[in-house]
Amino acid sequence: MSQLSRSLRLQGKSIGFVPTMGYLHEGHLSLARKANGDSDIVIMSIFVNPVQFGPQEDFKKYPRNLKRDTALAKSAGVDVIFYPSAKSMYPAGYKTYAEVEGLSDILCGEFRPGHFKGVSTVVAKLFNIVQPDIAYFGQKDAQQAIVIRRMALDLNMPVEIKVMPIVREKDGLAMSSRNTYLSKNERQDAFVLRKVLLLAKDLVRRGKRNSSYVIEKMRLMIQEKRSAKIDYIAILDAQTMAPVKFIRGKALVALAVWFGKTRLIDNIVVNS
Amino acid sequence: MSQLSRSLRLQGKSIGFVPTMGYLHEGHLSLARKANGDSDIVIMSIFVNPVQFGPQEDFKKYPRNLKRDTALAKSAGVDVIFYPSAKSMYPAGYKTYAEVEGLSDILCGEFRPGHFKGVSTVVAKLFNIVQPDIAYFGQKDAQQAIVIRRMALDLNMPVEIKVMPIVREKDGLAMSSRNTYLSKNERQDAFVLRKVLLLAKDLVRRGKRNSSYVIEKMRLMIQEKRSAKIDYIAILDAQTMAPVKFIRGKALVALAVWFGKTRLIDNIVVNS
Repeated sequence: MSQLSRSLRLQGKSIGFVPTMGYLHEGHLSLARKANGDSDIVIMSIFVNPVQFGPQEDFKKYPRNLKRDTALAKSAGVDVIFYPSAKSMYPAGYKTYAEVEGLSDILCGEFRPGHFKGVSTVVAKLFNIVQPDIAYFGQKDAQQAIVIRRMALDLNMPVEIKVMPIVREKDGLAMSSRNTYLSKNERQDAFVLRKVLLLAKDLVRRGKRNSSYVIEKMRLMIQEKRSAKIDYIAILDAQTMAPVKFIRGKALVALAVWFGKTRLIDNIVVNS
Repeated sequence: MSQLSRSLRLQGKSIGFVPTMGYLHEGHLSLARKANGDSDIVIMSIFVNPVQFGPQEDFKKYPRNLKRDTALAKSAGVDVIFYPSAKSMYPAGYKTYAEVEGLSDILCGEFRPGHFKGVSTVVAKLFNIVQPDIAYFGQKDAQQAIVIRRMALDLNMPVEIKVMPIVREKDGLAMSSRNTYLSKNERQDAFVLRKVLLLAKDLVRRGKRNSSYVIEKMRLMIQEKRSAKIDYIAILDAQTMAPVKFIRGKALVALAVWFGKTRLIDNIVVNS
């Protein structure tokens, strides 16, 4: 992959890069299509990165289907799929981590210690291997996007980060490879995430600026769903991720909620 | 600098890179000359990196002389000098660090917590800005060289790391910008470093393979010098930096010794 990237760069080709963990859905494909419009060559990585999973997490059962992914990726304009082995990415004696301090241990990072350190490390590695001009991430993983943007800026990575809108199912559920874990009931309950995010947006639009008030209204609506268990609901500055007490201008409303054994995340930008 | 590197790369020029903290001596210049022989363009950075200095260390008094450095660098074949400000390298909100875990907290890292994390971070940044084909480091800073090699390998950095031999004063003292701190007496005493490293080499050549024995002989000789105070003497595997009890094949003998308020390091590779 390194050699191919190097030779593409020497030919003056621009490279668009879509890093994924595979089991592609319309969210990933929207990134690939965008990359296809922007760059000469679209490279997609498919790598279920062990370092970003905790010991109790779903690394082993995370859904994988390279054959299906390959066909979908091609249909969305991907030219090259890079699917390294864990052993080649983290050989014996591996010791180096890139970490965005202060953004990695809050929200999802509080529940998933080491997760964002694993994400920033693998993305730093992939950028060095693929050498993209532009890399694409989904707004669904809002904290991830903020962490990656910060890392690329701080470490002077020669790549532009583009964060693309959330792609949703018909009923509004954000697309995620983990949706496949949901039972029928859980899947029905999960619709509440979109509902409470739109509620938050509406409350803010109607002048409710107190974050605690908005969060409480969201909490009450989620708690009506039997399979739901809230991990967090937060209203934040979208650059620094500092909590926002009173919403002025733009803010990020983000949440993580369990449905049975599946933890889903979603978010919305509100504007007062 | 990023734009220049990018344009040089697009022109197909190869870039040799010598990162320094300035106050150049023959050690730095030997790296620049080597780079000049290897690559089309030689870039040298001069940046006294605040992040690798501890709060009690010599960041403020570290010697600086950009005008003299510029002339010396040119004479050694440097085409471009990059001397960023600390503010541009670490702007407000800076949060990201690259760290080689396990190699950064031993030896010099034990005495200088955060030092190697600062070194690996700034080198990661400089590599992304300068985009070199080859980067040059001195064997004098042996632990630094091992940390950088490991980071470049682990993070798949598209750069070759070359580590060049220690350049010494006539009496054998390893060249260092910090030698300028030494009083006349301390400077005379500091010669003992080279002497004990050659003693170690000789003992190993004569079949002494017990590291404790070799270290004890070195310790005794250093202790004869009034201004000397030993920080550490260690015999290590030159890749993993694991301590070596019995020397078989190659090993790195490394030491750090204070002379008055100046801490000097030196090392030698021995072969049994």
